[in-house]
Amino acid sequence: MKLKSVLLAVNLLADLFYVKAQSGTAGLLPVPSEIHWNNGKYPVTACFNLALKTEKYDSVLYAAANRFFQTLNRRTALYFNTEYITQAIKPDSANLVVMAHSLSVADVGLDESYRIEINSRGIRLDAQSTEGALHGLETILQLVYDDGGRFYLPYVTMVDTPRFAWRGMMIDVARHFIPVQVIKRNLDAMASVKMNVLHIHLSDDEGFRVESKRFPLLQANGSNGQYYSQAEIKDIISYARLRGIMVVPEFDMPGHTTSWLAAYPWLASAPGSYVPGPRFKNLKNTQNIGEIMKMINSTPTPTMDPTRDSTYILLDQFFDEMSLLFPSRYVHVGFDENNGIAWMNNPSIVSFMKKNGFADAHSLQGYFAGRVSELLAQHNKITIGWEEILTGNTSKNILVQVWNDGQSLKRASANGNKVIISKGFYLDQFMPAYVCYNNDIFSSLSIDQSARFVMGAEAAMWTEAADKSNIETRIWPRAAAIAERMWSPARIHDVEDLYRRLYIVNRQLDENGLDQLGSYERNLRRLTAGENISPLKMLTDVLTPVKGYKKLMARMAKPASYAYQTTPLIAVSDIVPVDSETKRAFRKLVEDYLNSRNAVSETGLIKQLTEWRDNAKDLQIYFDRSELISQIRQQSDHLHEAALIGLEAMDKNRSPNKPSQEWINEKMRRLDEFKKSVAETNLDIIPEIEGLVKQQLAAEPATYPPF
Amino acid sequence: MKLKSVLLAVNLLADLFYVKAQSGTAGLLPVPSEIHWNNGKYPVTACFNLALKTEKYDSVLYAAANRFFQTLNRRTALYFNTEYITQAIKPDSANLVVMAHSLSVADVGLDESYRIEINSRGIRLDAQSTEGALHGLETILQLVYDDGGRFYLPYVTMVDTPRFAWRGMMIDVARHFIPVQVIKRNLDAMASVKMNVLHIHLSDDEGFRVESKRFPLLQANGSNGQYYSQAEIKDIISYARLRGIMVVPEFDMPGHTTSWLAAYPWLASAPGSYVPGPRFKNLKNTQNIGEIMKMINSTPTPTMDPTRDSTYILLDQFFDEMSLLFPSRYVHVGFDENNGIAWMNNPSIVSFMKKNGFADAHSLQGYFAGRVSELLAQHNKITIGWEEILTGNTSKNILVQVWNDGQSLKRASANGNKVIISKGFYLDQFMPAYVCYNNDIFSSLSIDQSARFVMGAEAAMWTEAADKSNIETRIWPRAAAIAERMWSPARIHDVEDLYRRLYIVNRQLDENGLDQLGSYERNLRRLTAGENISPLKMLTDVLTPVKGYKKLMARMAKPASYAYQTTPLIAVSDIVPVDSETKRAFRKLVEDYLNSRNAVSETGLIKQLTEWRDNAKDLQIYFDRSELISQIRQQSDHLHEAALIGLEAMDKNRSPNKPSQEWINEKMRRLDEFKKSVAETNLDIIPEIEGLVKQQLAAEPATYPPF
Repeated sequence: MKLKSVLLAVNLLADLFYVKAQSGTAGLLPVPSEIHWNNGKYPVTACFNLALKTEKYDSVLYAAANRFFQTLNRRTALYFNTEYITQAIKPDSANLVVMAHSLSVADVGLDESYRIEINSRGIRLDAQSTEGALHGLETILQLVYDDGGRFYLPYVTMVDTPRFAWRGMMIDVARHFIPVQVIKRNLDAMASVKMNVLHIHLSDDEGFRVESKRFPLLQANGSNGQYYSQAEIKDIISYARLRGIMVVPEFDMPGHTTSWLAAYPWLASAPGSYVPGPRFKNLKNTQNIGEIMKMINSTPTPTMDPTRDSTYILLDQFFDEMSLLFPSRYVHVGFDENNGIAWMNNPSIVSFMKKNGFADAHSLQGYFAGRVSELLAQHNKITIGWEEILTGNTSKNILVQVWNDGQSLKRASANGNKVIISKGFYLDQFMPAYVCYNNDIFSSLSIDQSARFVMGAEAAMWTEAADKSNIETRIWPRAAAIAERMWSPARIHDVEDLYRRLYIVNRQLDENGLDQLGSYERNLRRLTAGENISPLKMLTDVLTPVKGYKKLMARMAKPASYAYQTTPLIAVSDIVPVDSETKRAFRKLVEDYLNSRNAVSETGLIKQLTEWRDNAKDLQIYFDRSELISQIRQQSDHLHEAALIGLEAMDKNRSPNKPSQEWINEKMRRLDEFKKSVAETNLDIIPEIEGLVKQQLAAEPATYPPF
Repeated sequence: MKLKSVLLAVNLLADLFYVKAQSGTAGLLPVPSEIHWNNGKYPVTACFNLALKTEKYDSVLYAAANRFFQTLNRRTALYFNTEYITQAIKPDSANLVVMAHSLSVADVGLDESYRIEINSRGIRLDAQSTEGALHGLETILQLVYDDGGRFYLPYVTMVDTPRFAWRGMMIDVARHFIPVQVIKRNLDAMASVKMNVLHIHLSDDEGFRVESKRFPLLQANGSNGQYYSQAEIKDIISYARLRGIMVVPEFDMPGHTTSWLAAYPWLASAPGSYVPGPRFKNLKNTQNIGEIMKMINSTPTPTMDPTRDSTYILLDQFFDEMSLLFPSRYVHVGFDENNGIAWMNNPSIVSFMKKNGFADAHSLQGYFAGRVSELLAQHNKITIGWEEILTGNTSKNILVQVWNDGQSLKRASANGNKVIISKGFYLDQFMPAYVCYNNDIFSSLSIDQSARFVMGAEAAMWTEAADKSNIETRIWPRAAAIAERMWSPARIHDVEDLYRRLYIVNRQLDENGLDQLGSYERNLRRLTAGENISPLKMLTDVLTPVKGYKKLMARMAKPASYAYQTTPLIAVSDIVPVDSETKRAFRKLVEDYLNSRNAVSETGLIKQLTEWRDNAKDLQIYFDRSELISQIRQQSDHLHEAALIGLEAMDKNRSPNKPSQEWINEKMRRLDEFKKSVAETNLDIIPEIEGLVKQQLAAEPATYPPF
């Protein structure tokens, strides 16, 4: 059988996985609060148009309506008769009428609810705010479906409102600088899954990424030339605002401040000349996590001095400038991972602590946090900090972002602080989408006293091992699973249905210009130096980066040149998606086959396994040509052998003589060996092959160890 | 035989086409003035570094050195021990030493020459100016080659200097707005082939694309919200400057000014309310070129009134603002395609002409041009205009851009005006790279008196049918062929060698982030709605858009909704590359086969033809699913049948009984039918199949008719 037909057949099987009738959750992500499907469908034709009905002219909504209209025009290829959506289109002649009762700007805590009614008379979207109307437009785009080359909207009545007010994405632009256009593409993607906060981590040890006109040394000495001008920041904010997204800046302090200290060494708790870069440069001799944690907790790190007035004078002026630049009511000031050693090593600071009765560094940090949040309050800003900002007497006005300690949610709420949850949502830990989706904290929230303190959550993308060339593949489509957890009712939790919708959305994001698929393929072309990527892609499509911090640890164990900010992120483990779409489709096939032994799944499985079996040979030539590809040679051998085992298992189970327990044990042992990582990648389809051997598919682990 | 092996084999054959030993022109594009290859090679290892030797600190060169270094690090995957190129690296310990004798900024007319010497002692790059050093760094990147997974630079002595001082690219951002990041990607690509001018067509009937703070109505009424802020313009200029590229703005006048008149109707020669958009909206009833030209020449179009003082007062203030924004010494003011009808219809203008002795509209245009260039001279700017700016008494200081009339080069030079040539370099005419490369004007220049007036040339990308989603595929890699024509000595003209190098560069541009391949594949994914693109791509890889203005005419013949600025450019003819790489590789195979009948070319041909023959069946399902794909169904049938004919021809010619003349005639007739366009696409491999039938490959036409 020819390979192309095989591919096509498998894709057709995949279609069974993706396409679902206009019922259930359809292609909706996040799933709305309430959906009532009705019988019938409303055709979308070249005459399609829409009108807005607002009390005042809403420029944000008109811009969104035009984006909606052009996306729909592209997706349906109907070549709409209308060119632009303007006030000239009147509601009584429009197919879609959008009402927004009040004009709003990007902020959290707005009434974001909306209602959609589609019937033979047309489509009606009612929202309380501009933001609600934006969300409703995204929902309508997700409702459009193709039936034999014609496009329809199903008759439906839908009421939708978010579970949480704060639905954010944190992007670390300090460890690797992320250019404006990549931020914009992420904003587009965020809007399409109804996220409403971009938290931008603008400063850290590795870089100070925003232009200060008052303190230009910050970007001059702290950025290696890579920072956003104030014009670019305004551009990002305005782009976000048009999509209902608030931009919250983070200036991490008192630790994580090497880049500040490179500009103003007198801010530091220890004398020295500071150069932007990672705090810990000497981890490369160990991969022992105990030793590393010990070193992290015992090494002095660049830290601001909170005992001198000059520190507060500078911060006051800095906040004054940044408060005008960033219109958001919130400013994040970090306060994470300060081990206090730099303070305790400074006699003047120790004497300050003694004099003022601070028993330990954490109390001093509390004092610093208090003064910083007072400064911000004077600029009408609410302070956010990572969970370490909490001390015994933290002001209740401070928002606490939970990321690490399982108890910090309870501690914050006991103290009366509102909370944003990022624990379990760290995208750089490379957990599959379903793990983020099933985030423990959220499952327990409904019975938790602290729930009423939870404002919302944030996906967090730290960039030790991500840059502009791979960050979109790292974030998407997984962040959409988190977006659903933040928006949809807690009862929505079907993982298989999530994945079905996730890959529908993934394609729409690709169509809209997100580069999560494009950069993966570009990176594959780079690896093959222009040679046909198909054989390599067949393998890499089922490889995922090692989970947890294993990749980071491996990177640190190598020579420094593997952990520079300029290090090319081009190894296979850098470029492959975190969730393998092929694995999800394969898992579904195995499940169907084991449940029902139907011919479709059987044929599909045999085709897929045969392809994998035969691919190893085609890949040989690539290994000789590229060092980076040769690093995964063993994975190719493993995939080949795993496919053989899968085929043999199917063969044996079709025959009257079922496989012996010995055979099963032997193959399970062998498959277990294929679970070990190779060049920081995992072969992601082993549990499914095991399922074929044991004729039973094991449940997936709820989570994975971080190390 | 399995298809994947087939693909791989064909790619290996292709490699024979691309990879060339370090001799001849290697991977160099543009080809340098003088190359002397020496025996030996210099290894590039993880220890590789470079040092700059300049009299003053040259920030542009340091930025370029770091880009060079990171590109090399990525391409070789060596994980260089050095992180950044700084002054800390001393020449005597560096592998590569770059000397630039004078610090320069992006401008034309600099000494851009450089010299490269590579031997066992290292690599030495000497340049007169910063720009020369930038060019030399690009050349060194093109010299690096992979030999069995190790990287080397060949021993070489090279002296290089450009043939022309002005090597530009004109991008029309008015008809479709092109976002900053797309402009930046083009600037990166331009720099890599040593182009040094970005001519940005900022205003036209369809849009006014730059923020004026003095005349904000220009962008408010003239842009549909799509324009560059002044901060973005500064960003583009600074990005270009770091790459040795000067940015020249064009504000087209007195015609092509609907977007100006939308803001200031009193500037117009005829009363009316003006809305940005194409001048001609009523072409859709005819595709007869005679009728269309007649209408174009007889219809009044929106035109500035050159007889009123108020016009010059506004222009003076406008130029004052723009002269500060754009540091280039040049400002382009258009002056193209003004048919003068609007003037002749206005009694007040006619009476002005009479009073001042202007015999016709063209003389009046000469007067306007004179006054405009005087205004610009007061702002220390040199005026550029399209060839219609020439009248009997045009100032010699005006630069004339030749684009249409075969005589205008002679007329300009006879008048003593310097010239930029764009005739033959219009990328939107979809001529293959070799046609641009063999541009007639350039071949005759060496014997032409007017040659000494030629400052250089520009590739021109008009955007009636291009937007951000396809413009890179339109421009690249073809523009690199034009870049070579502008840089390299006239004696460099081997088309086959050009294509070999063009596709090497194409892959490097892709690696560096240009989206010419990425957007093509994204657009294919959009067409297949997520289905495997391979069968579709096999067909579209040999389809090219119809040449000349046929596509534009076809577009105009359709309903208005196919020619809006918001029209999705998603049809196959919108998204396929203009030069088919597959066709070039196939042509090379046919040529080799006909010349030598060697087994490699024979096997390669049979494989390729078999793939094409079998692909039609695999594509069936796509036609049923997508209207846009079904438009090219006939091309699929034609490719299938052409492949069958090719296979039959090879078969017959292998057997003792050679094909009869009747058979040849019949097949040639049939193949001729396959040359007609389908949905504005051409099947690009027909001449090669004809070559197999006739056992003789016909030369390619020197050019194609524009209509």
